[in-house]
Amino acid sequence: MREAYYDQLDSIFGQLGTIAREVEVAVGRATQALLTGDGEIAEQVISADASIDRQREEIEDNAFSLLSLQQPVAGDLRTIVAALRMVGELERMGDLSVHVAKVARLRVPGVAVPPDMVPTIEQMSAVAIDMVGQVAALIESRDVDAAKALAEDDEEMDRLRRVSFRELLSNDWPHGVEPAVDLALLGRYYERIADHAVSIANRVVFVVTGETPSS
Amino acid sequence: MREAYYDQLDSIFGQLGTIAREVEVAVGRATQALLTGDGEIAEQVISADASIDRQREEIEDNAFSLLSLQQPVAGDLRTIVAALRMVGELERMGDLSVHVAKVARLRVPGVAVPPDMVPTIEQMSAVAIDMVGQVAALIESRDVDAAKALAEDDEEMDRLRRVSFRELLSNDWPHGVEPAVDLALLGRYYERIADHAVSIANRVVFVVTGETPSS
Repeated sequence: MREAYYDQLDSIFGQLGTIAREVEVAVGRATQALLTGDGEIAEQVISADASIDRQREEIEDNAFSLLSLQQPVAGDLRTIVAALRMVGELERMGDLSVHVAKVARLRVPGVAVPPDMVPTIEQMSAVAIDMVGQVAALIESRDVDAAKALAEDDEEMDRLRRVSFRELLSNDWPHGVEPAVDLALLGRYYERIADHAVSIANRVVFVVTGETPSS
Repeated sequence: MREAYYDQLDSIFGQLGTIAREVEVAVGRATQALLTGDGEIAEQVISADASIDRQREEIEDNAFSLLSLQQPVAGDLRTIVAALRMVGELERMGDLSVHVAKVARLRVPGVAVPPDMVPTIEQMSAVAIDMVGQVAALIESRDVDAAKALAEDDEEMDRLRRVSFRELLSNDWPHGVEPAVDLALLGRYYERIADHAVSIANRVVFVVTGETPSS
């Protein structure tokens, strides 16, 4: 009985890792669509999100059946509830990738990001993709030290967002209102993806140690 | 035993209603700070958020103890897990009010919103405050018809957001980049508050009927 329980729990974490990998791909492709003005890739990201939503429902069903049938207490209970929350956050990260793809789609065949701002977006997306990749690995390894290290990457994201605001609000910003608005919202989407990554890492720490890291 | 269980469950929903009322106040005050450039009110909203976070923790503790001690199944289990999610969404709505207050604070003693855009922000905030107020009432009444009606207010929010984008991206936008960026982000914050309100309403429908409304 207990063995079946741990098999089911492992299978839920396996599914969470799979979704995290799909989110990692979604962020990468949405950024590619954004920086190349490729409407087809943008559409792919938007339609692939349904698969993430479907897997979320599966994980929820599995977690509920585990809660109902196995009646776990204490640590096990917290683990399953943490898994339910992690899948909610992963789904939001998928939605945020869709938002990035939709900004790209809106400007096709043009490119939403002015050439001199491309490096900033490239850096933001690189940080976000790296964090999502780390989250996928963390869910699989449950490595507490690696989970704690993720918060540092989030500081890099905050720094990049400050840099981009400084540029687009400077007096010699040459691109006008529309790209500034696009960049402000894109910055917000990447920042939120990073926030969710940190939050999932904190939940992994909690699952393993029973304690929530102070943020 | 079962009676104690339902008392505890009612108490959790009572706490959720209290937090929703605090969020309603926070959205209203953040908007007031935003439209008047009142830095003191902005600070109050920012510091009051700690109380919402604290109550969130209390609700989580109560929900966990109910899950551990009473070992609920099926419908009761789903209700408690729904409550855990609702409190997570309410906390996010509080965070979003803080974001609005921080935009206000950044421009003090000035006002972030140009005079001709004040009506748009007033309407967005009125819709958001009304939706949060309805959510508070819904949590208390568990009125399924009222919960379903909330989705219509969300359409009004989407319309307002489209209107504001049209204005700030029009060729004769006179206010330059900074207010446009502020308004784009503010629109995003109010929209997310409304999204969370709809999501909570859907969870209330689910708790009562066992079915999630299609959105």
